Amino acid sequence: MPHVNIRITREGATAEQKQRLIKGVTDLLAEVLGKNPATTLVIIDEVETDNWGIGGRSVTELRKK
Amino acid sequence: MPHVNIRITREGATAEQKQRLIKGVTDLLAEVLGKNPATTLVIIDEVETDNWGIGGRSVTELRKK
Amino acid sequence: MPHVNIRITREGATAEQKQRLIKGVTDLLAEVLGKNPATTLVIIDEVETDNWGIGGRSVTELRKK
Amino acid sequence: MPHVNIRITREGATAEQKQRLIKGVTDLLAEVLGKNPATTLVIIDEVETDNWGIGGRSVTELRKK
Amino acid sequence: MPHVNIRITREGATAEQKQRLIKGVTDLLAEVLGKNPATTLVIIDEVETDNWGIGGRSVTELRKK
Amino acid sequence: MPHVNIRITREGATAEQKQRLIKGVTDLLAEVLGKNPATTLVIIDEVETDNWGIGGRSVTELRKK
Repeated sequence: MPHVNIRITREGATAEQKQRLIKGVTDLLAEVLGKNPATTLVIIDEVETDNWGIGGRSVTELRKK
Repeated sequence: MPHVNIRITREGATAEQKQRLIKGVTDLLAEVLGKNPATTLVIIDEVETDNWGIGGRSVTELRKK
Repeated sequence: MPHVNIRITREGATAEQKQRLIKGVTDLLAEVLGKNPATTLVIIDEVETDNWGIGGRSVTELRKK
Repeated sequence: MPHVNIRITREGATAEQKQRLIKGVTDLLAEVLGKNPATTLVIIDEVETDNWGIGGRSVTELRKK
Repeated sequence: MPHVNIRITREGATAEQKQRLIKGVTDLLAEVLGKNPATTLVIIDEVETDNWGIGGRSVTELRKK
Repeated sequence: MPHVNIRITREGATAEQKQRLIKGVTDLLAEVLGKNPATTLVIIDEVETDNWGIGGRSVTELRKK
């Protein structure tokens, strides 16, 4: 029953890429900790670049540089 | 001052249903732990089905089956 | 497959009370949104009062008043 | 490498205000704990008022009063 | 700069296993989305079994069955 | 009613430092967005260095270098 929350900036991740992330994380938890894939919950949050900051600046600002 | 975060897939929950969830969780915390409703914070996140995975597959994929 | 995270200060909630919170939230989601209890995940976090702030003060400080 | 998640209701915060929040929190962590701004991650979530509850009522309901 | 939060029950995951989870998730995000490992943040939370519920029952209760 | 979650590694932050973080974040939200300090909720999570990874390695491993 692990729960994995993946947070990334909203910059065009495709449904297929998100499916690969879900599958990859689920397989990793099964392999490393023997967790049951059937109850492994993965949630991906995509966040606007105005709302994501690193080094004191939003990604929107950083992308302008 | 409890904080409750409810995460569900974005599949049409109405404003009225979300109000019932907020009320129900607030009442539950008051009843079980004597928490003050006035400072009980409830946040509901609705997540796209591409972004929610169980059993290694996104809910979008699962719904296609 | 809802996921509910309940965050409370660490002030002596018993195993029995936490079980009632888990049951109560699971029932609420089944009743309001028809969610399947078997895949409803509830996680309770208990946080030290030094680490919980409201009104600009930690709960430890507030309790001293 | 601190991670700060700021959750607010979606009520018109501007990109400039969100930049000030990112900068302010990053500076605070550098000042108080000597954390390196370059790896301080700040994420702001804006939540619909239907989905944010306090005192058992959604903010949408509270705003109607 | 992705952020991944892995939540598992506190049931004896070793430092070595947690290192493998951190490495595995970081590699996955680099492979699927081209994310820079140097700024990929992974946080693992281990939660007491009294505090983790599925199907309306705490894991502590479920383990007794 | 903003909610701020600050996550740092568990490396000796004092109660006084955590109080300063709580006060600083609350003041920042009042100053930038006019939020009411009385209902601004701040939660600080301190995470073991085995459980915190950056660049594919746990902080415990990185500290050994």
